[in-house]
Amino acid sequence: MGLYKLASREFQAEDTVICIGDVTIGGRELQVMAGPCAVESREQALEIAKIVKKGGARIMRGGAYKPRTSPYSFQGLEEKGLEYLAEAGRAAGLLLVSEVMDTRSVDLIANYVDILQIGARNMQNFALLREVAKSNKPVLLKRGLSATIEEWIMAAEYILAGGNSQVILCERGIRTFETFTRNTLDLSAVPVIKQLTHLPVIVDPSHGTGRWELVNPMAKAAIAAGADGLIIEVHPQPSEALSDGPQSLKPERYMQLMKELEQIALCVGRNFRTSGVLKKTGTEG
Amino acid sequence: MGLYKLASREFQAEDTVICIGDVTIGGRELQVMAGPCAVESREQALEIAKIVKKGGARIMRGGAYKPRTSPYSFQGLEEKGLEYLAEAGRAAGLLLVSEVMDTRSVDLIANYVDILQIGARNMQNFALLREVAKSNKPVLLKRGLSATIEEWIMAAEYILAGGNSQVILCERGIRTFETFTRNTLDLSAVPVIKQLTHLPVIVDPSHGTGRWELVNPMAKAAIAAGADGLIIEVHPQPSEALSDGPQSLKPERYMQLMKELEQIALCVGRNFRTSGVLKKTGTEG
Amino acid sequence: MGLYKLASREFQAEDTVICIGDVTIGGRELQVMAGPCAVESREQALEIAKIVKKGGARIMRGGAYKPRTSPYSFQGLEEKGLEYLAEAGRAAGLLLVSEVMDTRSVDLIANYVDILQIGARNMQNFALLREVAKSNKPVLLKRGLSATIEEWIMAAEYILAGGNSQVILCERGIRTFETFTRNTLDLSAVPVIKQLTHLPVIVDPSHGTGRWELVNPMAKAAIAAGADGLIIEVHPQPSEALSDGPQSLKPERYMQLMKELEQIALCVGRNFRTSGVLKKTGTEG
Amino acid sequence: MGLYKLASREFQAEDTVICIGDVTIGGRELQVMAGPCAVESREQALEIAKIVKKGGARIMRGGAYKPRTSPYSFQGLEEKGLEYLAEAGRAAGLLLVSEVMDTRSVDLIANYVDILQIGARNMQNFALLREVAKSNKPVLLKRGLSATIEEWIMAAEYILAGGNSQVILCERGIRTFETFTRNTLDLSAVPVIKQLTHLPVIVDPSHGTGRWELVNPMAKAAIAAGADGLIIEVHPQPSEALSDGPQSLKPERYMQLMKELEQIALCVGRNFRTSGVLKKTGTEG
Repeated sequence: MGLYKLASREFQAEDTVICIGDVTIGGRELQVMAGPCAVESREQALEIAKIVKKGGARIMRGGAYKPRTSPYSFQGLEEKGLEYLAEAGRAAGLLLVSEVMDTRSVDLIANYVDILQIGARNMQNFALLREVAKSNKPVLLKRGLSATIEEWIMAAEYILAGGNSQVILCERGIRTFETFTRNTLDLSAVPVIKQLTHLPVIVDPSHGTGRWELVNPMAKAAIAAGADGLIIEVHPQPSEALSDGPQSLKPERYMQLMKELEQIALCVGRNFRTSGVLKKTGTEG
Repeated sequence: MGLYKLASREFQAEDTVICIGDVTIGGRELQVMAGPCAVESREQALEIAKIVKKGGARIMRGGAYKPRTSPYSFQGLEEKGLEYLAEAGRAAGLLLVSEVMDTRSVDLIANYVDILQIGARNMQNFALLREVAKSNKPVLLKRGLSATIEEWIMAAEYILAGGNSQVILCERGIRTFETFTRNTLDLSAVPVIKQLTHLPVIVDPSHGTGRWELVNPMAKAAIAAGADGLIIEVHPQPSEALSDGPQSLKPERYMQLMKELEQIALCVGRNFRTSGVLKKTGTEG
Repeated sequence: MGLYKLASREFQAEDTVICIGDVTIGGRELQVMAGPCAVESREQALEIAKIVKKGGARIMRGGAYKPRTSPYSFQGLEEKGLEYLAEAGRAAGLLLVSEVMDTRSVDLIANYVDILQIGARNMQNFALLREVAKSNKPVLLKRGLSATIEEWIMAAEYILAGGNSQVILCERGIRTFETFTRNTLDLSAVPVIKQLTHLPVIVDPSHGTGRWELVNPMAKAAIAAGADGLIIEVHPQPSEALSDGPQSLKPERYMQLMKELEQIALCVGRNFRTSGVLKKTGTEG
Repeated sequence: MGLYKLASREFQAEDTVICIGDVTIGGRELQVMAGPCAVESREQALEIAKIVKKGGARIMRGGAYKPRTSPYSFQGLEEKGLEYLAEAGRAAGLLLVSEVMDTRSVDLIANYVDILQIGARNMQNFALLREVAKSNKPVLLKRGLSATIEEWIMAAEYILAGGNSQVILCERGIRTFETFTRNTLDLSAVPVIKQLTHLPVIVDPSHGTGRWELVNPMAKAAIAAGADGLIIEVHPQPSEALSDGPQSLKPERYMQLMKELEQIALCVGRNFRTSGVLKKTGTEG
């Protein structure tokens, strides 16, 4: 190790805490980013935003530009999707995170969302890393499918060295020989990142496993391992989702998970600000 | 899936709970197996047994026959090691688990210990699987370094089909491209095993990470993910251990971990029988 | 399989042969692309071009925009590098291939070189794939570090579906647990690509192994396996190269390899047009 | 590197050449071991032996004890299989290689065959390595599914250190994320083994790819990369084979391959003694 500088604990001993309005990432409070893989329609975005809010998450995820293995798969609603997402987020009082795939669309997407996401397949798209470094928005940097932890930190270093210190790392599973799960979620990366860097790190158990029934246990495990938060796919009708249905939680399972996570959080000295919200929605529902 | 029969949830819906005296594996109570990688001397075995007991674990691990990559490395004390282990276990009131590597020594080892361990490198040593199937001792079956979950269950099926229904699976990390950790601990295997089979599954965060500083967070994560227990390397002087020093916990760190695990256990509806013991030792120390 | 259409043998039974001037890729004649990892100076480019030509290769490689793991490593000479490369290629009578990393610089690079290279880290940079699809230049598409063969073909499908039918695939090693070699060169991908698609496929034994001493045997093996050509790093002083020195061949080793390859080529019914050239340079030297 | 001693080029600079009767392994002459995955019947063994001989190979392979993932799959004919194999080998004038899986059956198997095979799943079955080290038979040591090259050499070192210097290494594919092929055949291991050790190394393109149509190109590539020989599965009716049918060559394809290999061998300064035989059978057929 040691090839990175700005990301290292030697350079900065204390944890980086990213503040967006009154939402903090990397502090005592855990954050959950929830929502659909892809924004599919205005109605879908509005509906999911309400569910996300009700469950207690403070940030909504949703893809408008989708990196799909096949050119014949649904590629996202593009700017129209960003509009729907922005409207839904405003209505529900949620921050927004969405993926950027092209250097030429960074500014456009930054106009709509609060956090720019770099997907796993672009982790070493160095032109894109340099471009988001020029933005004043926080960047969610997913680990590449076959990136070592050091390479992942070096990708963050590109953003830091480019002048943007607001980087959030996201473990989303690595590619291994195992075929039962879509990827192998490497939770040991969480304490390693905490040891080597001062950056916040969250976990994506949806892509990390590819199976909704594994999202609950792996989300709990991620928090127990010290993650600063989670990013989770939620969809009202997973079987009809235009992408990633098998790994999306139904709304009630998402709400149940949020409750269970609170207890784990307390065990590791963390909390969700959503505690109060959850109790209130409890009496409402 | 579906190649296995006896291990499947279809064959047996309820969880298998293995009972050894008053210790249960796979039930509500979580079990920790702790001890040195290798039994190094009578004194070491006796000393560690006391520490293991004091921390609250009920099962002691310790290798007498060691599978070493190099023929020039310490290969274990063999039967002498088993004698030391047995004496230490008796003195401290601990059950014992130790590895068997050769079909010809299964009976010998079964005379000394309560649980026979099949190491990762022998997971598909089918002659050995058939031999431990003939024993009336529970078998701890570690996942092979590059074994898929299905192959691992099929290895358990060899033991079950051979007449021994007391199989405990152990996730100990798989081999991936990542080099910072010794292996990649695949915690998603825990809920997958619970979904597909009725067998107990424990986690080895020591081999799974190869770094003592990752053992604590990954042990907690394992319990949060639903594991039935842990196997952990503990050594009074890790830097002088004859093998696996870098991944062994010092006694005080082991004791601290045991306390922290209790809280996580409660969050997932499990407990350690050791709660009382820990409080008592707390007032003693 | 079957997600790709335009790349498949079902869509087009006969091999795609790409013609650039009188150089054909994918036909009976094998092609070698040789040169430095990075263009380092005008002098270096001119010197290596002469060596490349003398050895018999008809295409020169050289990076002007370099995808480096660290932001602090040499990032390439950018447009100045392209100018040097173009001058050197013209002087020696060689075609040129160089990497494109940003959608915004595709047109610029296409002005200087004959083949646009998509690097392994950008294999699923879909915005970039769509952009090179709009170019009328052939595209050399390297396999991603952890891309399955099917995903790699799907990436080619993006280019084909975007209107550019001149795609050359390049196996350059995949990421595995092995650490002695930089990557694991998957030569079985060559006959698989030939079976499933009609596209030409070449092999990069330099990146595929990371060690110059393995380039010769693996280059021969690639041709024996049916590859349509090779891309090889050659540098006059590998120990002083700004990148990838350990995997670069010295000029004399490159020349020797080119001679040895001719014989293997004949065994599999292929040939180098360079046969005559080599003999001539033989009498000169 | 450097953990091994007896296997290293430092310990012994010249190549080890193993002589069994007039068959040499590791010398100028290449050797092919061909035959069925499993011995299925006396008739099958006799029939395949004739084919193997006719094609020009001098060693017959055939499993009597089979390491199968499932306990419910065909496990081999055991000693009866060895009897059939021995009879077939004698009748055709072929040497024999067969797998040993249990320390207790090493002597038995050594009575029937000329070369003891250690399978990939037992590469680090150290008890078995120690036992075959006591035999005076050459040992064919397959690389483990996730064994690094160094670990594989260390396994050979166990046999060498135990007193048996006749070790033949066999690359048979490693486990990676790729799913189109059964394993990823790591041909770069061939020149690496030649560089680091003095031991002969052969390649198994049948297990290495899992697909018969890839056996021919990968066999040629193996020889081009410097392998000392091949081990190939041949079966008269692959579709009816009790195991590994999809990767077995039909007799005519095996014969064709043997002819094509001769030319590649000459390119790399090697030959088959079988040249004469093939011509004769050519006039016969």
